[in-house]
Amino acid sequence: MPADLAETLAAIAAEGLSATERGQVASYIPELAKVSPAHFGIAVITADGTEHVAGDADLPFSIQSVSKVFALVEALDSHGDAVWARVGREPSGSAFNSIVQLEAEGGRPRNPFINAGAIAVTDLIAAAHEDRAGSGAILRRVRALAGDDSINVDGAVAYSEAATGFRNAGLANFMKGFGVITGPVASTLDVYFHQCAIAMSCRQLARAGRFLAHAGRCPSSGKQIVSPERARRINALMLTCGHYDASGEFAFQVGLPAKSGVGGGILAVAPGKASIAVWSPGLSPQGNSLLGTRALEQLSRAMGWNVFQP
Amino acid sequence: MPADLAETLAAIAAEGLSATERGQVASYIPELAKVSPAHFGIAVITADGTEHVAGDADLPFSIQSVSKVFALVEALDSHGDAVWARVGREPSGSAFNSIVQLEAEGGRPRNPFINAGAIAVTDLIAAAHEDRAGSGAILRRVRALAGDDSINVDGAVAYSEAATGFRNAGLANFMKGFGVITGPVASTLDVYFHQCAIAMSCRQLARAGRFLAHAGRCPSSGKQIVSPERARRINALMLTCGHYDASGEFAFQVGLPAKSGVGGGILAVAPGKASIAVWSPGLSPQGNSLLGTRALEQLSRAMGWNVFQP
Amino acid sequence: MPADLAETLAAIAAEGLSATERGQVASYIPELAKVSPAHFGIAVITADGTEHVAGDADLPFSIQSVSKVFALVEALDSHGDAVWARVGREPSGSAFNSIVQLEAEGGRPRNPFINAGAIAVTDLIAAAHEDRAGSGAILRRVRALAGDDSINVDGAVAYSEAATGFRNAGLANFMKGFGVITGPVASTLDVYFHQCAIAMSCRQLARAGRFLAHAGRCPSSGKQIVSPERARRINALMLTCGHYDASGEFAFQVGLPAKSGVGGGILAVAPGKASIAVWSPGLSPQGNSLLGTRALEQLSRAMGWNVFQP
Amino acid sequence: MPADLAETLAAIAAEGLSATERGQVASYIPELAKVSPAHFGIAVITADGTEHVAGDADLPFSIQSVSKVFALVEALDSHGDAVWARVGREPSGSAFNSIVQLEAEGGRPRNPFINAGAIAVTDLIAAAHEDRAGSGAILRRVRALAGDDSINVDGAVAYSEAATGFRNAGLANFMKGFGVITGPVASTLDVYFHQCAIAMSCRQLARAGRFLAHAGRCPSSGKQIVSPERARRINALMLTCGHYDASGEFAFQVGLPAKSGVGGGILAVAPGKASIAVWSPGLSPQGNSLLGTRALEQLSRAMGWNVFQP
Repeated sequence: MPADLAETLAAIAAEGLSATERGQVASYIPELAKVSPAHFGIAVITADGTEHVAGDADLPFSIQSVSKVFALVEALDSHGDAVWARVGREPSGSAFNSIVQLEAEGGRPRNPFINAGAIAVTDLIAAAHEDRAGSGAILRRVRALAGDDSINVDGAVAYSEAATGFRNAGLANFMKGFGVITGPVASTLDVYFHQCAIAMSCRQLARAGRFLAHAGRCPSSGKQIVSPERARRINALMLTCGHYDASGEFAFQVGLPAKSGVGGGILAVAPGKASIAVWSPGLSPQGNSLLGTRALEQLSRAMGWNVFQP
Repeated sequence: MPADLAETLAAIAAEGLSATERGQVASYIPELAKVSPAHFGIAVITADGTEHVAGDADLPFSIQSVSKVFALVEALDSHGDAVWARVGREPSGSAFNSIVQLEAEGGRPRNPFINAGAIAVTDLIAAAHEDRAGSGAILRRVRALAGDDSINVDGAVAYSEAATGFRNAGLANFMKGFGVITGPVASTLDVYFHQCAIAMSCRQLARAGRFLAHAGRCPSSGKQIVSPERARRINALMLTCGHYDASGEFAFQVGLPAKSGVGGGILAVAPGKASIAVWSPGLSPQGNSLLGTRALEQLSRAMGWNVFQP
Repeated sequence: MPADLAETLAAIAAEGLSATERGQVASYIPELAKVSPAHFGIAVITADGTEHVAGDADLPFSIQSVSKVFALVEALDSHGDAVWARVGREPSGSAFNSIVQLEAEGGRPRNPFINAGAIAVTDLIAAAHEDRAGSGAILRRVRALAGDDSINVDGAVAYSEAATGFRNAGLANFMKGFGVITGPVASTLDVYFHQCAIAMSCRQLARAGRFLAHAGRCPSSGKQIVSPERARRINALMLTCGHYDASGEFAFQVGLPAKSGVGGGILAVAPGKASIAVWSPGLSPQGNSLLGTRALEQLSRAMGWNVFQP
Repeated sequence: MPADLAETLAAIAAEGLSATERGQVASYIPELAKVSPAHFGIAVITADGTEHVAGDADLPFSIQSVSKVFALVEALDSHGDAVWARVGREPSGSAFNSIVQLEAEGGRPRNPFINAGAIAVTDLIAAAHEDRAGSGAILRRVRALAGDDSINVDGAVAYSEAATGFRNAGLANFMKGFGVITGPVASTLDVYFHQCAIAMSCRQLARAGRFLAHAGRCPSSGKQIVSPERARRINALMLTCGHYDASGEFAFQVGLPAKSGVGGGILAVAPGKASIAVWSPGLSPQGNSLLGTRALEQLSRAMGWNVFQP
């Protein structure tokens, strides 16, 4: 019998706020390193639209790689399956910023949720707009999904990303050398750094992810965002590739499609049941929120939300 | 609205038996190369125990790597979570018989469903029994799960595997050099080659996999084979790692936990709904049944069986 | 008994000018692709200063990676052994533009004669000068070594390199991400692209390399360019790393320290005996001059110039 | 002006015997781990046949990978250039026992001086003899080259190698899977483990290597062992590949063709001048004798023996 959701979240948040081992806050982007590791927030929106929150659920944080989900939705919307000519659908077996497979595999990234793949997806979006308007398209998409026009890019984070994003610039130039990226590298990276710097709260993120839990349709607006097939396919990608080289472990322990970001946020989807967002800035060695992952494991177990069981 | 299952299977089998592009039958094990590519069979057992079959569903074939699921169940039963000290739970991003990651990662295979990982799992089973009795333990496990004592090892295939299994011997010796395999390499390989050579029909295979669809409990015998947690974890591994370096693509297209073998068989699990086995000997370049994969895609779509949708 | 040098060179040039299989002219830099594959030139300057030339020995060509030798000399002069903190001294076992080892080895290139290593060396030079003056320092160095102020950068080639050098930009940004490159990536690449675009004839190149054959001292000017130890060390690097992933084969067949470039030039050193430059634009699959390599093999054999024999 | 050889050797041996940092004795072969790190011996035989020795120059040690030179000579003698169909001539850029390149390069080892390459060479020898007689052929070859029939295989070391040589068995089986090894793996490994276990003193080793310093001819017996071309080619391979993934560094620091073994021995060749053997069991992290390498650096510098200078 599933536990009471409100009680479960309260217990999870209490533990998440008080835990002593909290992981390491991402340090390679200076602006992110300033965030206190003490934060913990969680938001769950069930099928009926009820919003359950606990902890710092209304504090905005840098969504970082969680934005890769929204960029993929945007690119699939504008380019359809042509997206898959640029990027694969396989787990990489490598770190999030690895360049090794690009060299062996003709510059085509393994999937849209590692850095190289997300940059290739962003390049499509950048090419579909003039100047830097691609960045605006992704932000508008996120606002529409969350139904919240107050969501914005954190300019200081975007600047910090650009000033230190040499490995991403390495990936982008390498792909350009293979013809996988077609636009000007600087423009593509500019859009990419801005999408990573979008700031959202757990509540906003859970709202924005609802369509993935409900066959592509946002239950509050009633709008069909993507087709049911596209929704389940994005969920499949989140499950197999959403946690970089710890995706298999996350599937084993939690059993839900989810995408993490180095800002400490995770968006998770329990199909038919709930959209979930959790945030705690301290990371595991693989770059995923330590306490966020643990919280999702507890929630999944308590509520019986796991795609691998009846 | 889901389609009628019997009609769907009839249509799938008709197409599977008549298709002209059938892939290449595995040639690196001479005995497998003798199998006709013309075969196609499928069996589906729904939650109520009804068995739906079509095509060559009662013809035995070499289950090959599908046996890795049963060996994992056996090893978890006898060794518990100590299994995970020997083998990981991550997709490899490499071919089924790749040795590259072993060198970089201290001889510990990425997961139990690539060859190296399955050999490490088998080594645990071999060590738990005297002489070659490990092979018997796996066979007994398969018979008990299928409720069918007529299931047997195909001796000619086992011999053929052993006579040509140099890459597997390379993997086993390499892991032995790292201390990941502890028993005599020859004994471990002997058990491994025998488990791969188990011959089963689609019907038998679907029966043996029912417990995975029903929270670890076999609905016909009423026996709890593994705990619900273990069942969903095995399903998670099948989804992320069950099709080697095409696992992401299978999750994207089919959305069900499944394990393939180079004999052309695939065991798939629709949690709460059905246990499915399909067989067609021709393989894709990644070593998975070409028509079997297509059949599962059609079945999943027609019946709405996909773990990533409500 | 060694052959007569003049006769040998005449025979080599005749064959080099008339051979039908000439390899493929480098195509990835558009400006280089325009060069006719029909050219062949060779220049040999013996210890007494006699200059023997044949074929197109006075036609300038793009020295490309041969410039890596002169950049290394320049950087060792200005930074001493601190150069070796940035770059190793081992063959890479990989292609000239590979990025794989950088990721596994903390961004430190294997040696100064692959692209990544040369860019790291150039970064030191760029950092030692204001603006783009690093490029001038390398050109002045080459002019001084050749005793010829007419040597210049081919602007069209430099522009073509910059316009298409995305893989080099990938390497540079990746190294910058590891802190191996410290200056602005764009400035370092600018210097690098200009040094690659230096145009020299075989005669000029052979003159510029004389100090390496004579314990660091230029016999014509009498100037000690580098210490005897540094000269033999640079020769060692040319032998083990001068032909990318075909360096072992070149040592096996020719037995002389040498550095090749994708413009089709090769500078070779017979210690105590001669400085040699050869040019033919058609390349082998590994990116080394096909006929140039064959010419050096014939010359080495005919004259008994091979460091591995008495 | 070169130093006095006898004085130089005495100084080198005094330092070699008294040094406190001596490296780590190889531990992965139990029998080798028993050897005291206190040993140091050196032998130099100049062109006129004079034998200069110092330290433990007459104590036999396990030559290990130095035997790869003699096995190559034997295989080239019996199979000619067909050897090169099995093994390449390039530095590997990887560790001595790495298996990674084998997978990417069709099972063909990079060169005959890494383990995989030496096993492929040994397989040719094993195939040319009945039963285990290949081992005898290599031993006879070594005895003939050294002019000393007392040289023998250390049975305890050979047994210890075989009992723990799983990584070598991994390499051999992997190559067998690619068809690069054609004989029975067990027989080939048996010959390989025996050749590695040959025990020789520095004096014996220096005698056996003299032909490489003198254009393929043994000055004492007057016999032409290999052609001048083959001698210089073997020297080239020793220089580019003789110290595994530290070969570039050895060329940079010492500048002589040389082959090391994990027993702590190194055979070095100064063409036209001397054959040199040094032994000290403690190893560098790359698996080469720490004090042996230093001794060769001092000797090379003192005597001016370096192929890269006039």
